[in-house]
Amino acid sequence: MKTEAILLAKRPVGLPGPDTFEFVQRDLPELRDGELLLRTLWLSVDPYMRGRMNDVKSYTPPFPVGEPIRGGGIGEVVESRHPAFRPGDLVTGDLPWQRHAVSDGRGIRAVPAGLTPVTAALGVVGMTGLTAYFGLLEIGRPKPGETVVISGAAGAVGGVAGQIAKLNGCRVVGIAGSQEKVRYITEELGFDAGINYRTDDLRSALREACPNGVDVYFDNVGGAVTDAVVFQMNDFGRIILCGQIAAYNLERPELGPRLFPLFVMRRLSAQGFIVSDFSRRFDEGTRRLAAWHQEGRIQSRETVVEGFERLPDAFLGLFRGDNIGKLLVKVADPEHR
Amino acid sequence: MKTEAILLAKRPVGLPGPDTFEFVQRDLPELRDGELLLRTLWLSVDPYMRGRMNDVKSYTPPFPVGEPIRGGGIGEVVESRHPAFRPGDLVTGDLPWQRHAVSDGRGIRAVPAGLTPVTAALGVVGMTGLTAYFGLLEIGRPKPGETVVISGAAGAVGGVAGQIAKLNGCRVVGIAGSQEKVRYITEELGFDAGINYRTDDLRSALREACPNGVDVYFDNVGGAVTDAVVFQMNDFGRIILCGQIAAYNLERPELGPRLFPLFVMRRLSAQGFIVSDFSRRFDEGTRRLAAWHQEGRIQSRETVVEGFERLPDAFLGLFRGDNIGKLLVKVADPEHR
Repeated sequence: MKTEAILLAKRPVGLPGPDTFEFVQRDLPELRDGELLLRTLWLSVDPYMRGRMNDVKSYTPPFPVGEPIRGGGIGEVVESRHPAFRPGDLVTGDLPWQRHAVSDGRGIRAVPAGLTPVTAALGVVGMTGLTAYFGLLEIGRPKPGETVVISGAAGAVGGVAGQIAKLNGCRVVGIAGSQEKVRYITEELGFDAGINYRTDDLRSALREACPNGVDVYFDNVGGAVTDAVVFQMNDFGRIILCGQIAAYNLERPELGPRLFPLFVMRRLSAQGFIVSDFSRRFDEGTRRLAAWHQEGRIQSRETVVEGFERLPDAFLGLFRGDNIGKLLVKVADPEHR
Repeated sequence: MKTEAILLAKRPVGLPGPDTFEFVQRDLPELRDGELLLRTLWLSVDPYMRGRMNDVKSYTPPFPVGEPIRGGGIGEVVESRHPAFRPGDLVTGDLPWQRHAVSDGRGIRAVPAGLTPVTAALGVVGMTGLTAYFGLLEIGRPKPGETVVISGAAGAVGGVAGQIAKLNGCRVVGIAGSQEKVRYITEELGFDAGINYRTDDLRSALREACPNGVDVYFDNVGGAVTDAVVFQMNDFGRIILCGQIAAYNLERPELGPRLFPLFVMRRLSAQGFIVSDFSRRFDEGTRRLAAWHQEGRIQSRETVVEGFERLPDAFLGLFRGDNIGKLLVKVADPEHR
């Protein structure tokens, strides 16, 4: 059986372009004992995937050139020789950018029964939700009454982080790149204030939105946005370094004001993390996120791009700021529902 | 009674100069109940004092213009109407830059009996020793076998931090600004390796001295030295931001490569601190440092400048890198010994 796949054709320098990706027809191997055949229904595109396109020492091994790009996804089991899965089951995990895939079940698990929509398994109750949960609570340790600022606030991680901070009794201020995103975080997600970094004067807007300074900063963005927030931080402020999307397509490190003198003066701390650092606690996190999601206390919009062939462009849309909430590519409808 | 004092004449912009300081004769008030009259014997000059010359929000209130500069010192009690002190006692604490001073005893305590030399109360067993102790152990949390790099390694804090790291079973590499300092840290203090940042190629010297990368970085310096170390850090590396002497005399923040993208990739953490954040544990720290000092396991050279009138220049010498170990100004000999 053949399937369509999208390979990493060459390592991008700077912003990925059309020559980064190659569409090919691939042979799928015969199913062996312990394996299952999946139809890909949904694929998640996330900024961290840009890092895996580089050949540098990083927390996840780089994508090999000539192999399919991979990411979080949801598939439907078509055929199974694996004891834990039956045809028709919906599963989620790390999937290749292919219309069909053969898996040995490692890194794959059932989508929790009753999860609505099932795509929440890729967002609020999945990787991005867990990222927000552990980053905010374990690194940020927000206390009731503190002010939490979130960059990339309308993204999949930022939106959930802000809502969890609200559940913890904090004042929550989001920074995003359009008026529509600012409306989304304040009107739909319940942030106390939103700042459009493209049109507002960031420093004065921050001073106005954070009259008591900034205690916790959840950073998805980096660059000049982060400089502005760090200079407003209170003594003993905590900086959660979750993402630095402003830097992912730079060909060399950008210069910025040195921040460490301020760290000493105000006893700031900063910590980088990735969600898998907390993998031993994923069950706990998933349970709490699923409960909040079901109670309607945490929500996330989804931006859906239809069609497997649009995966590369959807991925690049992350760096244009196209998405509100979770950006997903719909590859196919399930057959068994 | 009159005494000589050195006032902060005006707030310096950039490097302090002669017009920063003013020598005056001051009236000392009559001693009241609960007060004591001190002869100043020793005054400590330390880089953090530069920050107190600025009128900015910081961890310690700024020195008022027209008032004496203050710092750690040792005095001899000349006259006492305070129940805890008698003439001839040696005391240590925060003292004004004056030949004599009246104190109500707050922030003043007896120099521990048997401490040799008594100036260790300003160094290894005093503020700089405690800074090294809490910064390294509480923020750095070094594990045996890990590699610890220390900038400003021949200074009062860096030298002690490196020796404590050795006591904890680490490989310790110091960075300093002369061959004499490199010899001091390797031959006298027992560091495993030393790098002269003025003459060595810092990146290749670090790679050679740290074949397993850098796990803990105790930073007294900042600037380009710190950039070079941070780029060599291992996953989950900890950066102790103790001082940033390279930045203290800058008129505006310097630009440097943005480091936060690396923080995410390698899950680095950085934390600024000052020693008084740990003041509730000073007894514990002082006890352990005093024991190590007495056993000869921690030592520090002293660079002594003789004469009250040389205080301003001694202070400025910190920024020229004049000192090895603790920089002290000897103001007078005790009368009672």
